[in-house]
Amino acid sequence: SIDAARLIGRIRELGEIGRDAEGRLTRLAGSDNDKAGRNRLVAWIEAAGLDVAVDQIGNIFGIWRSEENSGEAPIMLGSHIDTVINAGIYDGCYGVLAALEVIETLKDRGVTPARPIVVAAFTNEEGVRFAPDMLGSLVYAGGLPLDAALATIGTDGSSLGEELERIGYAGNIEPGFLKPHAYVELHIEQGPVLQREGFSIGAVENLQGISWQRVTIDGVANHAGTTPMAMRSDAGLAAARVGLFLREHIARSNAPSVATIGTMRFEPDAINVIPSRAAFTVDLRDPDEDRLQALEAALADFLVRIGAEEGVTISVERLARFQPVAFDQGIVAAVEASAKARGLKSRRMTSGAGHDAQMIARIAPTAMIFVPSRDGISHNPREHTEPDDLVAGANVLLDVVERMVSG
Amino acid sequence: SIDAARLIGRIRELGEIGRDAEGRLTRLAGSDNDKAGRNRLVAWIEAAGLDVAVDQIGNIFGIWRSEENSGEAPIMLGSHIDTVINAGIYDGCYGVLAALEVIETLKDRGVTPARPIVVAAFTNEEGVRFAPDMLGSLVYAGGLPLDAALATIGTDGSSLGEELERIGYAGNIEPGFLKPHAYVELHIEQGPVLQREGFSIGAVENLQGISWQRVTIDGVANHAGTTPMAMRSDAGLAAARVGLFLREHIARSNAPSVATIGTMRFEPDAINVIPSRAAFTVDLRDPDEDRLQALEAALADFLVRIGAEEGVTISVERLARFQPVAFDQGIVAAVEASAKARGLKSRRMTSGAGHDAQMIARIAPTAMIFVPSRDGISHNPREHTEPDDLVAGANVLLDVVERMVSG
Ligand SMILES: NC(=O)NCCC(=O)O
Ligand SMILES: NC(=O)NCCC(=O)O
Repeated sequence: SIDAARLIGRIRELGEIGRDAEGRLTRLAGSDNDKAGRNRLVAWIEAAGLDVAVDQIGNIFGIWRSEENSGEAPIMLGSHIDTVINAGIYDGCYGVLAALEVIETLKDRGVTPARPIVVAAFTNEEGVRFAPDMLGSLVYAGGLPLDAALATIGTDGSSLGEELERIGYAGNIEPGFLKPHAYVELHIEQGPVLQREGFSIGAVENLQGISWQRVTIDGVANHAGTTPMAMRSDAGLAAARVGLFLREHIARSNAPSVATIGTMRFEPDAINVIPSRAAFTVDLRDPDEDRLQALEAALADFLVRIGAEEGVTISVERLARFQPVAFDQGIVAAVEASAKARGLKSRRMTSGAGHDAQMIARIAPTAMIFVPSRDGISHNPREHTEPDDLVAGANVLLDVVERMVSG
Repeated sequence: SIDAARLIGRIRELGEIGRDAEGRLTRLAGSDNDKAGRNRLVAWIEAAGLDVAVDQIGNIFGIWRSEENSGEAPIMLGSHIDTVINAGIYDGCYGVLAALEVIETLKDRGVTPARPIVVAAFTNEEGVRFAPDMLGSLVYAGGLPLDAALATIGTDGSSLGEELERIGYAGNIEPGFLKPHAYVELHIEQGPVLQREGFSIGAVENLQGISWQRVTIDGVANHAGTTPMAMRSDAGLAAARVGLFLREHIARSNAPSVATIGTMRFEPDAINVIPSRAAFTVDLRDPDEDRLQALEAALADFLVRIGAEEGVTISVERLARFQPVAFDQGIVAAVEASAKARGLKSRRMTSGAGHDAQMIARIAPTAMIFVPSRDGISHNPREHTEPDDLVAGANVLLDVVERMVSG
C-alpha cells in the first residue's frame, strides 16, 4: 500500500502555496501562484528520480521508465494543480500527488513494471482564467490546435502563451508526445453522492456534457430617478430573468441537468444608472447529450423572448462545449475489483464535473476513481475529504496500475 | 437676454474634458478629470471678474458682490460639474454655466444688484463614486458633518478628503459660510415629461424622496457541475429575485415609484462556481414619503423571505436617504411668470432626480427650473437638450434673478 503520511503531507503542503493575506487559496492557470505550485511539484518529481518533461502547452509530466520498458506505451495517471478562486486543497492536486505516490510506492519495491508509468499535471483544467476548461489535456488529445490554445485571452486580458512563457512553463515538447496505453484519474467527487450513500469509492463510468456560453445583454442606460419603470430597457433585469428561467425550466423538466450563472458584470455599474449592459456566463450540464441540446435550445428561445419583452439586444458567444463521455468498462471493472478486494464499498457513478480524463479518453482507454467530498462541497475552502478516504482512493489507484503493468 | 453662443460654447467645451480613448465622458468626483473640469470652471469665473472661494468639502463659488451690496444675503445659483460614468454633457454643467452666464449678463449691463449673486458648483452630486449623492450641498446645508463627509470611502477604496487634497480642491472656508437669501437651480429634466407634453419650461415645485441601500447576499460557493439544483444556496439567483420582485411589486401597486439595481458584483465570479456572494445597490424613489417607506418595508420583507427560501444570509447597509422636498411657492410662481412673459409653455412638475436644490432647500427658499431632455434620456452619452431650450431656460433664470435683486 501507499505511504499515507507522505501523500497527505504533500497535499497539505501544496495547499499552502498561493494563499493571499486573508488565507484564500488561488492558483489560477499561468499565474505566479501557479508557477510556485508547479515548481514544488517538479521538485518532488525530480526527488523521486523521474524524468521531467514539459510540453508546449505547459503540461508537466514525471516519467518513470527503464531500458526494458521504454518501448511500451505508458500508463498515464494524473489530473491538474491549477485551482479556482478561493479554492480547497484537494481538487486536482489529490490526483496528481496520488499518482506520484503510486509511482514512488512501486519504485520503492524495486520492481520494473512492464510499461513506463507517467504522472501528468495538465494546464488550466479549471477554466476560470482561460476558457475552455481542461485546456491542457484537450490540446494534448489533439482536440484544440496549439496555436489557438496559446492565443487564448484570459479574464484579465492576458494571453495563455505569454503567461506560460512568463512563468517558465512554455516547454518545447509537442503535446501528445506520449500516447498512453491507458489513463486513470483519481479525484475527489466534488458532489454529495458517495458521502450521502455511504460509499468510499466511486467507479466513474461516464461524465456529463458541458456547455459554456457568455451572454451579453444590451439595454439602454438611463437615469434611475426619472425613468418610469414602464419606459426602461434594463439589461440587469433581463439577465435576472435568465437565471430564474433556467432554474424553473430544469425543475419543470425533472431532468438531472444543472445550470449556473457564475459571473456577472453590469455596465456602467453605477448606483443611479439603469444598466446598459449585463454580461454573464452560463454553465449548462447534463449526462445525456440530447437533453443538453434541448436545454441549450430552451435557453436560446428564452433569450429571443426576453429580447422582445425587455427591449434589449442579446449576443451569445460559445466558450466551451464537451459531449458526455463513456469511460473504458475494463478499467471501471478493475476499480470495482480493487475496492472489493480491499473491503471498500464502491458504486458506479457519473461525474458531474469536467476532468482531464474526459479529454484523454479521446486517445486512450480511460476511467476515473472518486472519493467522497464532505457535504458535497467543492470550489470552496471548505472542500474536505477524510484522510482514510484519500488513502483508500490512492490504494485503489495503486491496485489498478499494478494489474496493468504486471507483465 | 443671455449670450446664447457663450453659454452653449462653454457647455460643449466643458463636455470635452474627461473623455477617455473611446470618447466616453467621465468626471467622477475627486478624480483627475474632475480636477481638469474644475480648473476650467475656475478660469471662467476668474475671467468674469468674480471672487473664487472653495470650501472645505470642495464646493466652488464664484461671488459677484460690490461694496454697496456685500452686507446682504446673496442669491445663489448653481448645480454640479461631476458626472456619472459615460455621461452626457448637460447634467449639472448646464446649471452651473447658465448661472455664470446670468451673472455675466447682469454684470455686462453695468448695474449693481441689490444683493450679491453667487454661482456654486457642489462636490459629488452624482454619488457614483462617493455615497450619498448631493454630498457637497448636504454638507453645505449642515446635513452631514464635514469630518464624516471627508472620511467617505469611494467605490475604489479612496477617501473623499484625500482625493480633494490630491486634486487641490480641499479649500479652507467653512461650508455654509454664505447663507443664501434664495437658491435657484436650472437643470435638464433628465426625464420624458416636458418633451412628450410639448412644454419648454418646467417649474419644479417638489422633488421625490430617495432611498439608497447596499444589499449583500451570502450563499454557499459550490461546484457548478456536481451540485444538484435543489441543493444550492445561490447568492446570484437570490439577487435576481430581488430585482424582479421590485419591478412586479411596483407594477401591482400602480404607484409612480421607481426601483433600480444599478450595480452588481458576484463572488468568486467564476464560470463554474455557484456564487457565494452577490452584492448590489438598490435605488428606490417616490414623491410621497409614506409610499417610499412602504416600498422600503416591502423590500425588507422580501429579503427575509428569500433568505429563508434560498438558504442565504442577507445584510443591508443604508447609503443615502432623503425625504421628498417641497420648493418655495414664490420662486415657482416667478418661474411661471417669466415663462409666460417670454411666450414659453411651462408646467409645474416633480423632479425624479435628486439635486443640490434638495439640500439647499434646508437653509434657504429654493426652487428649480427644468428644460426638456430628448427622449427622456440622461446618465447616457445620448443625453441631449435643444439649444433653443437651453437658451430659454437660462433666460428664465435671468428673469427670476433680476426680479429678486432689483431692489
Ligand atoms: N473538476 C473540476 O472542477 N473541473 C473544472 C471543470 C468543471 O467546471 O467541471
Ligand atoms: N441630477 C442627478 O442626476 N443627480 C444625481 C442624483 C440622483 O441619482 O438623482
